[in-house]
Amino acid sequence: MTHKYKGFEPKWFDDDFSDDSYRSIFKWGEKRQIKPPRESMYKLLKDKFEIDDSDFSEYSEELGLDSVDYDIPIKLDKKHIKKFKEIFGDEFVRTDEYARLSVAYGKTMYDIIRLRQKVVENVPDAVCYPDNKEQVNECVEYCAKNKIPVYVYGGGSSVTRGVECIKGGISLDMRLRFDKIIDFNEADQTITVQPGLSGPGLEKALNEAEMRFGAKRAYTCGHFPQSFEYSSVGGWVVTRGAGQNSTYYGCIADIVMAQEYSTPVGVIKTDSYPRKACGPDIDQIMMGNEGTFGVLTEVTLKIFRNMPETIKRFSYMFPDWETAQRAAREIMQSEAGYPSVFRLSDPEETSIMLYMYGVMDSPLKHLFKLKGFKEGEMCMFLGFTNGEKGFSKNCAKHTKKVARKYGGMTLTGYVTKAWEGGRFSDPYLRDTLQDFGVVIDTMEASVNWSNMTKVHKEVRAYCKSRPNTVCMTHMSHVYPQGANLYWIFISKFGSAEEFKAYHSGILDAIQKSGAAMSHHHGIGKMFAPWLEGSLGENEYKVIKSLKEHFDPDNIMNPGGTLGFDLKKDEIIRKDKRIYEKTW
Amino acid sequence: MTHKYKGFEPKWFDDDFSDDSYRSIFKWGEKRQIKPPRESMYKLLKDKFEIDDSDFSEYSEELGLDSVDYDIPIKLDKKHIKKFKEIFGDEFVRTDEYARLSVAYGKTMYDIIRLRQKVVENVPDAVCYPDNKEQVNECVEYCAKNKIPVYVYGGGSSVTRGVECIKGGISLDMRLRFDKIIDFNEADQTITVQPGLSGPGLEKALNEAEMRFGAKRAYTCGHFPQSFEYSSVGGWVVTRGAGQNSTYYGCIADIVMAQEYSTPVGVIKTDSYPRKACGPDIDQIMMGNEGTFGVLTEVTLKIFRNMPETIKRFSYMFPDWETAQRAAREIMQSEAGYPSVFRLSDPEETSIMLYMYGVMDSPLKHLFKLKGFKEGEMCMFLGFTNGEKGFSKNCAKHTKKVARKYGGMTLTGYVTKAWEGGRFSDPYLRDTLQDFGVVIDTMEASVNWSNMTKVHKEVRAYCKSRPNTVCMTHMSHVYPQGANLYWIFISKFGSAEEFKAYHSGILDAIQKSGAAMSHHHGIGKMFAPWLEGSLGENEYKVIKSLKEHFDPDNIMNPGGTLGFDLKKDEIIRKDKRIYEKTW
Repeated sequence: MTHKYKGFEPKWFDDDFSDDSYRSIFKWGEKRQIKPPRESMYKLLKDKFEIDDSDFSEYSEELGLDSVDYDIPIKLDKKHIKKFKEIFGDEFVRTDEYARLSVAYGKTMYDIIRLRQKVVENVPDAVCYPDNKEQVNECVEYCAKNKIPVYVYGGGSSVTRGVECIKGGISLDMRLRFDKIIDFNEADQTITVQPGLSGPGLEKALNEAEMRFGAKRAYTCGHFPQSFEYSSVGGWVVTRGAGQNSTYYGCIADIVMAQEYSTPVGVIKTDSYPRKACGPDIDQIMMGNEGTFGVLTEVTLKIFRNMPETIKRFSYMFPDWETAQRAAREIMQSEAGYPSVFRLSDPEETSIMLYMYGVMDSPLKHLFKLKGFKEGEMCMFLGFTNGEKGFSKNCAKHTKKVARKYGGMTLTGYVTKAWEGGRFSDPYLRDTLQDFGVVIDTMEASVNWSNMTKVHKEVRAYCKSRPNTVCMTHMSHVYPQGANLYWIFISKFGSAEEFKAYHSGILDAIQKSGAAMSHHHGIGKMFAPWLEGSLGENEYKVIKSLKEHFDPDNIMNPGGTLGFDLKKDEIIRKDKRIYEKTW
Repeated sequence: MTHKYKGFEPKWFDDDFSDDSYRSIFKWGEKRQIKPPRESMYKLLKDKFEIDDSDFSEYSEELGLDSVDYDIPIKLDKKHIKKFKEIFGDEFVRTDEYARLSVAYGKTMYDIIRLRQKVVENVPDAVCYPDNKEQVNECVEYCAKNKIPVYVYGGGSSVTRGVECIKGGISLDMRLRFDKIIDFNEADQTITVQPGLSGPGLEKALNEAEMRFGAKRAYTCGHFPQSFEYSSVGGWVVTRGAGQNSTYYGCIADIVMAQEYSTPVGVIKTDSYPRKACGPDIDQIMMGNEGTFGVLTEVTLKIFRNMPETIKRFSYMFPDWETAQRAAREIMQSEAGYPSVFRLSDPEETSIMLYMYGVMDSPLKHLFKLKGFKEGEMCMFLGFTNGEKGFSKNCAKHTKKVARKYGGMTLTGYVTKAWEGGRFSDPYLRDTLQDFGVVIDTMEASVNWSNMTKVHKEVRAYCKSRPNTVCMTHMSHVYPQGANLYWIFISKFGSAEEFKAYHSGILDAIQKSGAAMSHHHGIGKMFAPWLEGSLGENEYKVIKSLKEHFDPDNIMNPGGTLGFDLKKDEIIRKDKRIYEKTW
């Protein structure tokens, strides 16, 4: 496939490959869908990595085309497998190699590099495909009694090794059957679903609510992470995820109304009242457990009115990062309504985006010069508003007023539309580039306005300390009190371990700078060694005591998730929360 | 004092009384401030209770004028009192009768009736007045070691027996010195305070931020419960309270950014990031502990811009309760912004309010008739909007549009202003009327739209099953998914036990109907026997395990709060969450 480059275009891999290959597991999304970079992006990469066309003349990374083939014996006793078949149905328990590997890895580069290099470890002994919560209850009870580790696989988009089956056992693959809609309640504007439901499955049902549920209107879930197309509701809920529209709709922790779990100590079911004063909030205790307390079997979510006609897009260029932060803060603190998508890119990311969206090949390039905006300093802000017509209009109008006040130059809605066009397909770029050894991955944190400059600077300094590395940063989940910071780095790595070391260094830098370790990716097994140092010793003991309550025998997602079963020397402890407010 | 009634006016008690009297403890607010009812209200009460002027010719209830005098020996060893004096300072530890009683009771009628009848029980042995968190840390550590019960008194506005010192021990009275402002952070729009700070203390500091902190503008706390003038920030936080403007600003659980506690297992301190994905949410674990996990020593709150000039008031009359609910739901679900004060009264409350605010003596009475609105059916809706000018305007405009759509008749801003004028002084009415044996108290719950009719009907039926009882209901904390329901009942009770039995019956009715037991008053000791049945057995065990973690020796607010140390036969267990959605 060619992209009609003017110059040399690498042969981006888009051949067919077998359904039992490694590639079929690590590749993002649709089997035959790829996303090659634009020519300007390609040129940029060559420039940044000091490489040329010859480096792209042959694949430098394993393509993973071979059939999955490894030898990790099943340790589970036959009688257990038999029992699972009784619970789930004969054809809904698999013990073949492919099935076992298909649910063991997520989508962090550490996973993908290992799969490309056929490094197979930490697979479950059996994969089960639940249909209903009664099966899950029975299964968890049985596993608790027999001390069989239980893992869960939703969409597999984990970037924290959340799904990896460190201790073998079983994995519950929720995608196949555990994706039904249980209840649609128009009066309360809620929907209750099984957690295996995918983003598009949920959104489609809501958009079609009139037809499907006899509703008065169409609805939307309001939760659109970049992984939307291949992530599950359950994954969102147990990690405390956030969609790209969270600034308006809220994070998943704001959207969940009620949950039901199978745990080793019984079923936990919360009610769906919006707010109450009946002791500590059990929903907020359960969210963030990342599978270590139990298996989510049902969840009730708020739903929102689908009003695409009220969307107002905007994008502005600010002269520099400091000014841009001030403008963002002012927009969020002035109580004119929160925009829905709200993305502010730092200078390096802005630079890249201008290439990626072809802006630097347009007349805008001269307009920037005219206004005195410099590449490497200027910062792009894009987004849109949702809500009722008047609300959306007022919010956009106010955003414009503030942007102007801070010297922002409008780029109209063009850039926003370009971003929207790529928002769910950008993940495809990773595989395409990685075939040639170029790795893209991310890290993110939560900050207040008053320490944002410091955190941005320190973490970025670490990222850029690696030669020939692109490091883009943006905020995309914004609050009156602060925002997330999201780092995307592009580099070439020799091995999974080399990647892991670099990734860990970023986490170190985040924690040393005092930011919270994750805004929405969660902790998993990958970031767990830093968690206790990040929360604090006494604070960490609180969640550890919850673990001991729910799962005294440590069968739920064992092997490091949230750090509950790390050995002492595996814990990376830093002084707790060192940060100065620099504003 | 006379109110210039046309007819007979009772001699509302407003004589001076001694500062060591029972009345000085149970009376709400300012010593000499009273709030007698208007003549129309007085007439209404006589009518409802089938009594006449002669019943108001002499006080039928103890006025509590005698000096506090009881004999409950101090059990605490002298060495402990000595230690507390070392920690807090000699003059900041009191063991006299008055001090001990002054912090033992709250403001539920059960407390007030007992005080009027000089029934003294459950007082602490000593009262301490902390100045800083280091003192509290040292005190809690000492009490944990020596198994001394620790209670906390903030503003004393508890209506759940939250402050009562069932096991003696000590009470920390936070009002005197533990009310300092620790940090004002304009960049993040947060303030950090000691929890003894009162509502007005906090609000004044924020309104005067320019002068006090060199801020760029004035701020507001956004949290205004009816008890505002005499409640403390700490009380709000540990109970999960809500202000009357919560529909816009959020409940306290939405306003708190970070907390610090002294607990028997050490200091817990959370960070102030708006959202993160680092496991279960520790702030949401701590809020609602109602003093049973530890003592709150510091709290960071969001602050909001003070923009009184953007307020838009509104009030409407709806033809009936069902229609009114539909209108309220539409306003909250249409995403045009949430009003700030949002109060919808049922027919009985509407009727009373029309008398209380003198509306029935005005031309409006005829307008209702003209429009076919009937007393006993029509429902009043009042409130106002906050936020940036355009946001506030749009929200009010949209509210008007919806109200009209549902047949609402505007009453202009008059009624809202009348309500505002009385919002913090209405509590004074209780004492004035109770001198003549008329008792006013409340109960509240949290519901979804889909079970609101059922809950309202069933709970009201119980309230009205008592002869000569006024029962007003409203919603005042509203969400897209539901709202609270708040019942105010007025009746004559012979004794505290008679009151308790009736109050318990209301709670039974709330729980049987499936609503959550409390939207914002909390559980305390009074509602604790219903909590396990309300949450469910497994769910309750989760918070019980937290209690066991923080306070294995049960020294923190022991004696029933949240039900942790109730005996089996004290637990009133009902089938969990029986409710049908009737919409």
